Amino acid sequence: MRWSDIHAADSSVFTRKKITVVGAGNVGATAAFLAATQELANIVLIDVVEGIPQGKALDMRGSSPILRFDSSVTGTNDYADTANSDLVIITAGIARKPGMSRDDLLAINAGIVADVTRNIVKHSPDCIILVVTNPLDAMVYTALRVSGFPKHRVIGMAGVLDSARMRSFIADELEVSINNVTAFVLGGHGDTMVPLPRYSTVAGIPVTELISEQRMKEICERTADGGAEVVRYLKTGSAFYAPAASVVQMAEAIIRDNKRVLPCCAYLEGEYGMNGYYLGVPCKLGAGGLEAIIELDLTEDEQSGLLRSMEAVADLVKVIDELGLY
Amino acid sequence: MRWSDIHAADSSVFTRKKITVVGAGNVGATAAFLAATQELANIVLIDVVEGIPQGKALDMRGSSPILRFDSSVTGTNDYADTANSDLVIITAGIARKPGMSRDDLLAINAGIVADVTRNIVKHSPDCIILVVTNPLDAMVYTALRVSGFPKHRVIGMAGVLDSARMRSFIADELEVSINNVTAFVLGGHGDTMVPLPRYSTVAGIPVTELISEQRMKEICERTADGGAEVVRYLKTGSAFYAPAASVVQMAEAIIRDNKRVLPCCAYLEGEYGMNGYYLGVPCKLGAGGLEAIIELDLTEDEQSGLLRSMEAVADLVKVIDELGLY
Amino acid sequence: MRWSDIHAADSSVFTRKKITVVGAGNVGATAAFLAATQELANIVLIDVVEGIPQGKALDMRGSSPILRFDSSVTGTNDYADTANSDLVIITAGIARKPGMSRDDLLAINAGIVADVTRNIVKHSPDCIILVVTNPLDAMVYTALRVSGFPKHRVIGMAGVLDSARMRSFIADELEVSINNVTAFVLGGHGDTMVPLPRYSTVAGIPVTELISEQRMKEICERTADGGAEVVRYLKTGSAFYAPAASVVQMAEAIIRDNKRVLPCCAYLEGEYGMNGYYLGVPCKLGAGGLEAIIELDLTEDEQSGLLRSMEAVADLVKVIDELGLY
Amino acid sequence: MRWSDIHAADSSVFTRKKITVVGAGNVGATAAFLAATQELANIVLIDVVEGIPQGKALDMRGSSPILRFDSSVTGTNDYADTANSDLVIITAGIARKPGMSRDDLLAINAGIVADVTRNIVKHSPDCIILVVTNPLDAMVYTALRVSGFPKHRVIGMAGVLDSARMRSFIADELEVSINNVTAFVLGGHGDTMVPLPRYSTVAGIPVTELISEQRMKEICERTADGGAEVVRYLKTGSAFYAPAASVVQMAEAIIRDNKRVLPCCAYLEGEYGMNGYYLGVPCKLGAGGLEAIIELDLTEDEQSGLLRSMEAVADLVKVIDELGLY
Repeated sequence: MRWSDIHAADSSVFTRKKITVVGAGNVGATAAFLAATQELANIVLIDVVEGIPQGKALDMRGSSPILRFDSSVTGTNDYADTANSDLVIITAGIARKPGMSRDDLLAINAGIVADVTRNIVKHSPDCIILVVTNPLDAMVYTALRVSGFPKHRVIGMAGVLDSARMRSFIADELEVSINNVTAFVLGGHGDTMVPLPRYSTVAGIPVTELISEQRMKEICERTADGGAEVVRYLKTGSAFYAPAASVVQMAEAIIRDNKRVLPCCAYLEGEYGMNGYYLGVPCKLGAGGLEAIIELDLTEDEQSGLLRSMEAVADLVKVIDELGLY
Repeated sequence: MRWSDIHAADSSVFTRKKITVVGAGNVGATAAFLAATQELANIVLIDVVEGIPQGKALDMRGSSPILRFDSSVTGTNDYADTANSDLVIITAGIARKPGMSRDDLLAINAGIVADVTRNIVKHSPDCIILVVTNPLDAMVYTALRVSGFPKHRVIGMAGVLDSARMRSFIADELEVSINNVTAFVLGGHGDTMVPLPRYSTVAGIPVTELISEQRMKEICERTADGGAEVVRYLKTGSAFYAPAASVVQMAEAIIRDNKRVLPCCAYLEGEYGMNGYYLGVPCKLGAGGLEAIIELDLTEDEQSGLLRSMEAVADLVKVIDELGLY
Repeated sequence: MRWSDIHAADSSVFTRKKITVVGAGNVGATAAFLAATQELANIVLIDVVEGIPQGKALDMRGSSPILRFDSSVTGTNDYADTANSDLVIITAGIARKPGMSRDDLLAINAGIVADVTRNIVKHSPDCIILVVTNPLDAMVYTALRVSGFPKHRVIGMAGVLDSARMRSFIADELEVSINNVTAFVLGGHGDTMVPLPRYSTVAGIPVTELISEQRMKEICERTADGGAEVVRYLKTGSAFYAPAASVVQMAEAIIRDNKRVLPCCAYLEGEYGMNGYYLGVPCKLGAGGLEAIIELDLTEDEQSGLLRSMEAVADLVKVIDELGLY
Repeated sequence: MRWSDIHAADSSVFTRKKITVVGAGNVGATAAFLAATQELANIVLIDVVEGIPQGKALDMRGSSPILRFDSSVTGTNDYADTANSDLVIITAGIARKPGMSRDDLLAINAGIVADVTRNIVKHSPDCIILVVTNPLDAMVYTALRVSGFPKHRVIGMAGVLDSARMRSFIADELEVSINNVTAFVLGGHGDTMVPLPRYSTVAGIPVTELISEQRMKEICERTADGGAEVVRYLKTGSAFYAPAASVVQMAEAIIRDNKRVLPCCAYLEGEYGMNGYYLGVPCKLGAGGLEAIIELDLTEDEQSGLLRSMEAVADLVKVIDELGLY
């Protein structure tokens, strides 16, 4: 038996895409796993901790014959292995610990994201960056400033997750398929989130016609509290299945050029009357990264909610700007 | 707007299957997640620790609108919620800790599996049980004895995982699609595993024609060491992606009645000249659980390898039998 | 080598579902193929013409190792082979030929559907029937009357197809992913269709905010003309990919108990102020068949459009009632 | 509401692949449909008959919101629309009609394939060509000669189909999942096919250990007769589901760079002791097209079977060479 090589490997007509996931914790590893199983690209999982990305990558590879994916998954501690990535997902960062102030956390994670971004840019100067690290609106801003990338190539993940949770609550409320439900959120991630029930639908029917105002208010509040609710259950951990699935959906829309409209954390320059901040707005994602922002006509209430979100973000950004990271 | 109910819920023509996963650690939770995303059944995730199964189930539910699965995932600490499960996956058990002897571990996990099995049988007397807890061959024996179930409804997961790892190593060696590779292992899980290279193939071609004997020996050794290799990387954790995918493939073969031939840990009564022990052999899985065992004509080497496996299992079973669990 | 049978086939814990597709033309065969590839059930494809269902079934079976489905596909001319089907899709019927009046066509297809229904009921008295044969609203009425089944077990396919076409036109218009678009249609299939732009959305945003009224009018007209547009291209054939996919989505919602809200042709008894006719309305499909009808508050225009649909249906039903088929 | 365009379409970071399918008959249309539903690429379906590719493409587009694919499907009669295709599938050709000699058919289809190839090469000089038109071994040779492409970019589809049918017969014989079965065929498509039972396996076990020699002989004969068996049922048509699935699997292996080992009709230059002919042999398909040929050590019987295949092909090629097509 012998292999007769017909075609030299270096003359490939096609090349598979490459996605790097930074951070091999639960969110990062689950994102790498989902992206690999969907065969979006070959995956590089990188972390500062030795062994963790390698061990998880090896474990995922062991599942590939069963889940039938040929995408490679490589674990590493060396940014050289991330070279020429098409898309990079940043999940690196620490969780807030007892006794740590919000500003302390902000400074630490901004430092981490800045450091990661510099390494990424060095090895993948043409990539698209998706940021998951919290506080999201400030971290994606950090990545934009440090990378020097144009805004359509630095995008934050928040709204996909928030709206997914809201969709699941609506589906449960009405006992209908989650495939029937859409949900719309704007603004910051967390407390200042602005859910838009009038653009949230079941089979196209606004939920405002299907669910009482009072009940809908509770669902919106539960959505804004979604991440905290999981933390209260897990005690020492936080959500990772839904966040990972969310950022992988954004990656898919870009890699597969789906022209998908998703709520993203986008850098605004005039849209919604705001300028110079990242905020959650409906966007079209495709091969070009963030290809368009959709500007809805908001009610006064919604607009003022968005303004509150922006003010909260502005406070964080001010702190970031003074850290001397860029 | 109003809903005009046509059909009362209690007169459903169809009912969705129900799978319970016992143990909400990494293996159990990942198995629940994979089974849910594949819409195999509605999932109940149960654990003795409060909050963990609830939090992970809530997190998975948040991912469902993105991953598009309507299967419900329920987290609980109460076996009443597992009632009338069609299939139960047991992952509960502890990992060996420093200073703990193998026999200590065996006794502790046997106690856990016995306790879990009693609870399962009480609420789901007609279910099929798949056991993942280690040491596997002894734990599935415990579940058989405690449950009093017929042998075709109590099956252990080991060979699917071992052969998946072996497949991934072969695919890497030859740079071919994992979808082309089959691999065959017999015997116990771990050191006494008996890989069968002559029944391991690439597109139907035995690997013995494609890979040198020396290199194949190394691949077999790496396979037997597969779990330990991941532990060496992770240090404080062990593999969960591949084990979870493996047991879910067995569950799928049963729930979807695929008549799939997979290496399973089966109770032997005469097959391969052995009697009264669980050992890894090729089986057909379908709607009836373990529907058939395939008896291959083994070489003398292979047969003696299998005998060594059995002797190791017999030692464990002797210990189990004396624990007074059934 | 020998197989050691552990578990007798007749004591299976699970049984796979069974779907019969009546009519092995393009729509029926494509529906059978899609249902098989999605592993919804084992499929029986039946037709009066000898050889066609057998040949197409054999061809499909040949594709199964590549498309990886274990569902069986059986072609037959004998209703005995359809026994105990869980769900039956009726696509049988002839297309209108030159010189044939609409009433001639109606009588011929009503006769075919009546005959098919009697055979189906005889062998599968507990099944759910989905009707695709045109003129749809009259044919599903025929199946209801002949079968004597309760209304939640006899449902027509029209709105899923019409709304799918409308969704594709909206997605093309805005250059967004078809996964973002919902569309809503009520009423009869074809000319008297009542599209509801205000309940048709892109990522939850009503298309009325995204597309001009004039352009939307054109899209609605093109949708109502959707089937005819394909016929003009094909000349001697008509659409089958979209119709087949549509009815299989309904079958999936029922078999997998998805509680999916879809526009279906349902028997109205008071809903929308109508009584005793089949008409396209939003319904919830699940394990019980048609589990609920959603009554929207319509505008006067929409309500009068629906009335016109009903009058057209009433004319057909009157003809059917006088054919002496039941 | 307005769309704020962030990113000009012409600066896309990624571009979706493009597949052209030549011939909008059953095989071509089904291949286009399967490739689209699997989101392999944007699809162009081209045919000389006006209306057919346009109508079928429109019909497929109508199914996209249900089957959830964003790939575009364009029907056309103009090769300009196929420009810059990455991969082209040629299904064009006529079926043998009563009174037509084999050589007449050969000449007609060679003329069609030559004409198609010239048009394809003109608009997509870098594409990979997959040929399905019969008689296969001669038609792919024609495409190679006319195109002037290197051999790794002109490949024929036959063995995937033959082995798929053989796999389905083996799975039926043993009542096991088709996912467990591999089958191996060499040589020409049809009568001179050389099946290799010893490389055909169930879960890695050679079928020679599972099925009697006599029964296996029947299965091999039925496989060689597979296409004709379908024709006998359909009378006026031939198989298309399995052929279409087969060529799409080859396309997938190339587009997704799966490094998949599949039996392909490859141009031999020394392999298996043959030179200057296309013949079915095991190949590795990946981003580079046909990346390697695997040379098995054949038994004398197998080798002489292959020789007979080659002689049959040589006769056809001689006729082709004299047609003055290149």
